[in-house]
Amino acid sequence: MSRFWSPLVHTLTPYVPGEQPKLANLVKLNTNENPYGPAPEVLTAIRGEAADSLRLYPDPNADRLKAAIAAYHGIPPGQVFVGNGSDEVLAHAFMGLLKQPRPLWFPDITYSFYPVYCGLYGVDYALVPLAEDFSIRVDDYLAPGEGPGAIIFPNPNAPTGRLLPLAEIERLLASRPDCLLVLDEAYVDFGGESAIPLVARHPNLLVVQTLSKSRSLAGLRVGFAVGQADLIEALERVKNSFNSYPLDRLAIAGAAASFEADGYFRDTCARVVASREWLGAELTALGFAVLPSAANFVFVRHPGRDAAELAAALRSRGIIVRHFRLPRIDQHLRISIGTREECQALVSALQEILA
Amino acid sequence: MSRFWSPLVHTLTPYVPGEQPKLANLVKLNTNENPYGPAPEVLTAIRGEAADSLRLYPDPNADRLKAAIAAYHGIPPGQVFVGNGSDEVLAHAFMGLLKQPRPLWFPDITYSFYPVYCGLYGVDYALVPLAEDFSIRVDDYLAPGEGPGAIIFPNPNAPTGRLLPLAEIERLLASRPDCLLVLDEAYVDFGGESAIPLVARHPNLLVVQTLSKSRSLAGLRVGFAVGQADLIEALERVKNSFNSYPLDRLAIAGAAASFEADGYFRDTCARVVASREWLGAELTALGFAVLPSAANFVFVRHPGRDAAELAAALRSRGIIVRHFRLPRIDQHLRISIGTREECQALVSALQEILA
Repeated sequence: MSRFWSPLVHTLTPYVPGEQPKLANLVKLNTNENPYGPAPEVLTAIRGEAADSLRLYPDPNADRLKAAIAAYHGIPPGQVFVGNGSDEVLAHAFMGLLKQPRPLWFPDITYSFYPVYCGLYGVDYALVPLAEDFSIRVDDYLAPGEGPGAIIFPNPNAPTGRLLPLAEIERLLASRPDCLLVLDEAYVDFGGESAIPLVARHPNLLVVQTLSKSRSLAGLRVGFAVGQADLIEALERVKNSFNSYPLDRLAIAGAAASFEADGYFRDTCARVVASREWLGAELTALGFAVLPSAANFVFVRHPGRDAAELAAALRSRGIIVRHFRLPRIDQHLRISIGTREECQALVSALQEILA
Repeated sequence: MSRFWSPLVHTLTPYVPGEQPKLANLVKLNTNENPYGPAPEVLTAIRGEAADSLRLYPDPNADRLKAAIAAYHGIPPGQVFVGNGSDEVLAHAFMGLLKQPRPLWFPDITYSFYPVYCGLYGVDYALVPLAEDFSIRVDDYLAPGEGPGAIIFPNPNAPTGRLLPLAEIERLLASRPDCLLVLDEAYVDFGGESAIPLVARHPNLLVVQTLSKSRSLAGLRVGFAVGQADLIEALERVKNSFNSYPLDRLAIAGAAASFEADGYFRDTCARVVASREWLGAELTALGFAVLPSAANFVFVRHPGRDAAELAAALRSRGIIVRHFRLPRIDQHLRISIGTREECQALVSALQEILA
């Protein structure tokens, strides 16, 4: 509290990110990072930018990166917006697109930053409960009566990992043509199919992705959005009223190189998916209920053990997983997919704890 | 225009940064970059971070960087806030501190991003005219009647380069103890004296600095603020409601290293100051009126030549300077201090143009 604060600040409840422990030698399965490092080409590109030219401002439009993303996805560069992590891209979307006279709708169980953005920008919202099996039901977003001002959810959803098929996304877009859908595809590369090809025929779709997960670049802070030009224009206006140069020269170079190193990307994603399937089977054998996941994490519950206690027992063995003290999911754990060795260490620790 | 935009977006007039030309071989004196590259220690630190660890999120609090800044300035780390360039730090200050029931006051001639932030966050403001000689008069901020809700200005001011002595800053702080002053010290290392030592005894002072100018790191995007803990808390609340990880791992490592490479920093600042004094004398000899500058640029006017025409004539000779089409200063040019060779090239071109 302070007499110098803007009135809004007193009302804010900031987002709490997963712990970034400063201890080494922890098995860190709590923030959905990729267990494999970035592509060698990315590191080479970054080292090449660590030069005298850092004295110069970056390209405020990051055209080189937009071109790389556009080429990768086969879309015009004018349909791409880039930002300092997908969190910044989402923040600008909340301010520039999702703040509407009618409330924003999103699932009751989803990325917990959404209500925080609403608090920051004064966006009214309504929670749409997931089904009992934690799936998103498109019909809930099509109910008669006064509809939403806009809709946002991740696909696959977080922290559940459940995927909504693209046909269902398209049914939603076609049924609510006057309502913007922001689709947060942070985890789509681990088993989903991106909705980016739908952008061409759906002016009410904005797809947001990040390089933090599938491209192993959480430490570089790059995210992007794809949508028709007027949606991108709204994001650019907000961005250019906030910070002209959100992406530094190293991030632009490294991120662009990532889209040019496709083989490495596909290989590491496939390894994560294989480990997820292996881990899911092992956890099921240990008595866990494992939700079907198309992400780089699994969302699990043990019918006989308290989730907070399990998380604490794992922590005491040097393994960190994520536990949310939130309604409906306080008996679940979200476990990021590590290397096969890390997954094995988790299974061994759980065998010990459950014995 | 789009039916999907938030109503606010229609009203925004974004900031226009100085041109970042993609042509090589231009003498680029338009965006106040440092002509000397970053310290070698900075480049080494960045290259060391270009590693597998980029798969991991950065420390959301950038504690290592806060500690380096705190140690450098002899203050507690809890008095330091860091962000993605001082533009982001300023944006958060506008939202979290400067938005008050009464209007924000700032000079009529100053950093042109301030009114843009006001538009973004709905901050009422009033312009306080500079004196005829383009100096800030503290008495104007102490006039009787309903005072400001808060005050912001750069010191030295931009684009004038004029410095307000620290005693005048302190007089303002002491005379308006209930009014926050945000002091934007982007250029202070080129001839000013920082107000950071005043923070300890003035709870109404927030000092903002950047690594873009004196530390040769415009391409890395790091800025910071120093103030008493409750001011920092407001900024952290806004930041943590916006983007948990605004500084990537490379920026944290490089910026921290910069504060540990003091000799290089002092030497390059001194070279810029020496070139500024040399260039000022040369321009005066060419008939320009040169404002006294404590920054890494000079603000000049030629009584016999139109400023826009001069800028165009320089541009056609491969030299870019900044011309603002704004009231009171549309006959001025802001010229960044380059290397001695670049300053010499500018003088030669002007000799030709004015001949």
